[in-house]
Amino acid sequence: MSVTGQTGADQLRQYIERIERLEEEKRGLMADIRDIYAEAKATGFEPKIMRQIIKIRGMDKDILAEEDMLLTTYRDALGLPTE
Amino acid sequence: MSVTGQTGADQLRQYIERIERLEEEKRGLMADIRDIYAEAKATGFEPKIMRQIIKIRGMDKDILAEEDMLLTTYRDALGLPTE
Repeated sequence: MSVTGQTGADQLRQYIERIERLEEEKRGLMADIRDIYAEAKATGFEPKIMRQIIKIRGMDKDILAEEDMLLTTYRDALGLPTE
Repeated sequence: MSVTGQTGADQLRQYIERIERLEEEKRGLMADIRDIYAEAKATGFEPKIMRQIIKIRGMDKDILAEEDMLLTTYRDALGLPTE
């Protein structure tokens, strides 16, 4: 597809505008997410730890168990406190 | 808000689940955007340049003009080809 013709230019514009609309929606969702973290923080929850929880909940259980074990092992090996 | 009580735990879970739903929607939009770039590429348009166009269309006109001018000046100063 050449962009030098009118048809090519129109098609390019349509692709660009579709992406721009979706990017706008994405920005809206990201603002909504920020608002929830802010609301949770105002309620007394710590956003940084909430982000860790969301990451953990999205992980495969076996991989999570493996990583938890390794982290404890490494912390212990380096004399860092472990629970 | 303490998370040790049932009320705190419930509220935390609600915040987390709301964020997870929005993150899921965001992933859906990002997949849609990738699909459009793929479709445009299959049609013969170059996604890398489309991304530059979207960035340019989102810029303030004066800042764009300033940056275009500086880029041309710098390219010229270093002997890089300019149009």
